[in-house]
Amino acid sequence: MSDHIVKSFDSDLESLRSAIAEMGGIAEKQLGDAVTALVRRDAVLAQGVIKADLRLDALQREIEERAILTIARRQPLAIDLREIVSAIRISGDLERIGDMSKNCGKRVLAIADGFQAQKIVIGVQSISDLVMGQLKDVLDAYAGHDLDKAMDVWHRDEAIDALYTSLFRELLTYMMEDPRNISFCAHLLFVAKNVERIGDHTTNIAETIHYLVTGRALDTERPKDDRTTAPTIAA
Amino acid sequence: MSDHIVKSFDSDLESLRSAIAEMGGIAEKQLGDAVTALVRRDAVLAQGVIKADLRLDALQREIEERAILTIARRQPLAIDLREIVSAIRISGDLERIGDMSKNCGKRVLAIADGFQAQKIVIGVQSISDLVMGQLKDVLDAYAGHDLDKAMDVWHRDEAIDALYTSLFRELLTYMMEDPRNISFCAHLLFVAKNVERIGDHTTNIAETIHYLVTGRALDTERPKDDRTTAPTIAA
Repeated sequence: MSDHIVKSFDSDLESLRSAIAEMGGIAEKQLGDAVTALVRRDAVLAQGVIKADLRLDALQREIEERAILTIARRQPLAIDLREIVSAIRISGDLERIGDMSKNCGKRVLAIADGFQAQKIVIGVQSISDLVMGQLKDVLDAYAGHDLDKAMDVWHRDEAIDALYTSLFRELLTYMMEDPRNISFCAHLLFVAKNVERIGDHTTNIAETIHYLVTGRALDTERPKDDRTTAPTIAA
Repeated sequence: MSDHIVKSFDSDLESLRSAIAEMGGIAEKQLGDAVTALVRRDAVLAQGVIKADLRLDALQREIEERAILTIARRQPLAIDLREIVSAIRISGDLERIGDMSKNCGKRVLAIADGFQAQKIVIGVQSISDLVMGQLKDVLDAYAGHDLDKAMDVWHRDEAIDALYTSLFRELLTYMMEDPRNISFCAHLLFVAKNVERIGDHTTNIAETIHYLVTGRALDTERPKDDRTTAPTIAA
């Protein structure tokens, strides 16, 4: 194989990696802005979050096309093939993370006129901060092919699910205290759920990194500690 | 190209199509069972829905692997390549449809002891029936490469989003009427949202069929008529 061919393939891989990095940067900003927009009830910022999603959708399609062309042209094997498959999977997770942030932005528009106490929003901010940390760390893990960092993100998902469960209960109590809170809190329930699902996607990315680095799928079922659907929450 | 090679590729495509058909059948049954479980408060049936999801996850990974190997081996062009790309995309949408049904099953487990009036559940059943129709029709459209049928599904999504919006409002009124409805209705809000998202995925599949049959992406933004995030719903 001549140097030229090797360099071409390297540059195919490099352009996939940097497209993922671009998606990752947009997704991180989108999530951060969605949370800021929520806390400040900032409708303009929320609109920006919604718009940013178009670029993510476009990048995901681009990456999928480029990956498939590369497979057809180069017939890569082993870790090279795993790099390309990983790019397809991770771009899918990042695109869905963007959708979740966009949905949070839409919810902010719905509650922008609300005058509810800030205390109700603080719990959502806490879980969002945790999940933003997950997203940042898993993107760093991907860039560095860092298996330990990826597995650390994977394990931290349990704590996020537990936090979501208690936040769900908390929001229900605000709704029961005062019917005027119901609509506002219903929207916050969805925001919290979107954020928790973003956390799940960062865990998917961690599993893909495991596959990329080791060549094997992660064996254990992810610890699901979202107990909002456990029968102990009485109707 | 010898007959043998052509037949091999045909059989690659055929096995992808029948794997998609298998996923489709499981997804249809899962959704139907989830709705039945909800209406009957049937915890055992709900457990079955949750378990069925494992098979969908496995099939999705299988299809992705097989598709990628086929691309590497055959370097397909034009409609053959689109068939394979479509299989990857559709298997992804079906896998997420399965996740949504699984989540509905989990919600059924959470409310299984509830004694709320059946009228509260009827709205959820209506939107579910519509979405089950979408799923069946879009899978038929894929099997028959039927562009008209796919576009019909795509257009019907608007009505489903409108129904979701009114169901959301309806559930809020039950919550405001009686605090004892709050927890039950919160779970139903999520069930309704999951069902509406399944509808969105059937629309994605319709768009993929458009790409498969015509070679072009569908140009127009899907009509989004989910107005639950419009500011007109006052807090």
